[in-house]
Amino acid sequence: MTEVASVTIVPRVGLTVLDQTLLPGEERVVELGTLEEVCEAIRALRVRGAPLLGIVGAAGMAIAAEVGDASDRSLTAAWQTLADTRPTAVELSSIARLALDAALEAGAEPAARRKALWAFAQVHHARRIREDRAMSEFGAALLSPGASVLTHCNTGALATGGIGSALGVVRLAWEAGKLERCYATETRPLLQGARLTMWELRKLGIPATLLPDTAAASLISSGRVHAVITGADRIAANGDTANKVGTYGLAVVAERHRIPFYIVAPTTTIDPECPSGASIPIEFRDGREVGGFGQLRWSPDGGEAYNPAFDVTPGDLIAGFVTERGVIRPPYPAGIAASLEKR
Amino acid sequence: MTEVASVTIVPRVGLTVLDQTLLPGEERVVELGTLEEVCEAIRALRVRGAPLLGIVGAAGMAIAAEVGDASDRSLTAAWQTLADTRPTAVELSSIARLALDAALEAGAEPAARRKALWAFAQVHHARRIREDRAMSEFGAALLSPGASVLTHCNTGALATGGIGSALGVVRLAWEAGKLERCYATETRPLLQGARLTMWELRKLGIPATLLPDTAAASLISSGRVHAVITGADRIAANGDTANKVGTYGLAVVAERHRIPFYIVAPTTTIDPECPSGASIPIEFRDGREVGGFGQLRWSPDGGEAYNPAFDVTPGDLIAGFVTERGVIRPPYPAGIAASLEKR
Repeated sequence: MTEVASVTIVPRVGLTVLDQTLLPGEERVVELGTLEEVCEAIRALRVRGAPLLGIVGAAGMAIAAEVGDASDRSLTAAWQTLADTRPTAVELSSIARLALDAALEAGAEPAARRKALWAFAQVHHARRIREDRAMSEFGAALLSPGASVLTHCNTGALATGGIGSALGVVRLAWEAGKLERCYATETRPLLQGARLTMWELRKLGIPATLLPDTAAASLISSGRVHAVITGADRIAANGDTANKVGTYGLAVVAERHRIPFYIVAPTTTIDPECPSGASIPIEFRDGREVGGFGQLRWSPDGGEAYNPAFDVTPGDLIAGFVTERGVIRPPYPAGIAASLEKR
Repeated sequence: MTEVASVTIVPRVGLTVLDQTLLPGEERVVELGTLEEVCEAIRALRVRGAPLLGIVGAAGMAIAAEVGDASDRSLTAAWQTLADTRPTAVELSSIARLALDAALEAGAEPAARRKALWAFAQVHHARRIREDRAMSEFGAALLSPGASVLTHCNTGALATGGIGSALGVVRLAWEAGKLERCYATETRPLLQGARLTMWELRKLGIPATLLPDTAAASLISSGRVHAVITGADRIAANGDTANKVGTYGLAVVAERHRIPFYIVAPTTTIDPECPSGASIPIEFRDGREVGGFGQLRWSPDGGEAYNPAFDVTPGDLIAGFVTERGVIRPPYPAGIAASLEKR
């Protein structure tokens, strides 16, 4: 079994990331040594996945301090710049904010601030690795022996910097001998399921079947799937959850077929400031991502496109939130509030 | 407004079809002069869409008679060969069967049989054109002024040989000044929405927005869509309907948001021999259609794929069947049976 090094923090220098836009064709590691390079990598989706973005955001703050003057103003501007690259993913903004707080608490000396920021980034990465494993163990325990699961987008090492969230559950269930097969949607328009999840599943030696997003309802109705599990980009206080576009439709179909739909995500993905999904900002991306892929165009040029990066699944469709602290069950405002108190 | 000539029957010679696998990049007309060429064009999806396949099937029978000995045995074998190319589409099999019956009724003379077959194909094509318009008028009448609709796959002239079924409704609603916008799914894996529907909508000058299949639930939940309308490949006696994979998921989401989901199809798409969706054979296609498109591959090689061409939408999710005879409303076994009696 090959471990995937999606991100490596190099204190005082920067960070290296696996360029996910080139997978599965090419495994190229790129070095990011300036805030601009970090932001470009985030915007271009060379790095993606809410938890991985948190790690990259923390390291990005350290890089900004290392390269710049580490003043209050510069660091606050760096945080804002990072947060603006992907507005829906709460971890990018919130973890970079915690990094900023750690720097300010370290005193006024630039050297002390830089040291505090690198330490914060490393401690945060270590925590992600630890929490991924904890979540994945709680999630694997929910599955019955012989279960097959359907997942969407990519939530493995490439998304989190640890063993993954939803795909971490798949991995530990497989290692425990409980999993029969993992079904992965292609996940248009950026095809993270086809490109990244199938690549990770192959590296892990897990039996995997790819399907077009259109075939998910057919697959679920066929009885082959025992649970649908995905990650999350932001969880509102009432359980409404923003995740990769396409998640909501899967949850609606899973409910019709009485198959549990689980979200696997660290408690840091919960945003208590968002009372419901209506308050979650949804990023709309370039319409040219639709109607083609890479250099290939398959739709007539110049047409309009509807291309949200995320959708919102109402909490009433979610059978449980699998976090590093355990599984949060409905009813949600209560269960989610309790999980936050334990933080 | 440009009319699209998706099929032209040339008696005693063969038929010409627009090669849909090359659209929207290239508009190439191919001539089919043997049964083998007709079957290859069907299997390769150069022609597709249940009603268009019915026309091609009828012409294919005439071509088989023209090239061969027109004996009972040869014509029956030709019918079986045609029916086997796409097992889910009932019109291909049933219309070719009616052509066979017409040939046998014309007597034993090969010349009489050939004449009867060419006449049958031409009359059937003219009937499709007439019925498309009738269906489309009934369907357009269902929409309120200012409506926007979501459609899936391709159901225009390229699919039927007339003005289309669901896309015919879109066209007549637009011409009547009632339609604000047509939303079209990409329709993975073969992208008929992105390639063909967007091309037809542009030719017709209708405001159109393309979306990834994953974004349909988001779009519906946003309130932008007032009806979901698709075609059908086979309708069972109880209303369960086989159509392009992805249709079922759209119908489930439409129901959750109380948006009507209509099927637009000629009554010949109804198969009274199928009591329910469980009896409809579903064609599974080559897994290599998933994980890439054309020459481009985006998933690791050699993985398994789940690739049904169709799914089945239960009749309880369908607000109405728009046919050339009017709109069939629930409850279905009764309404559908009544529509068949009128045939």
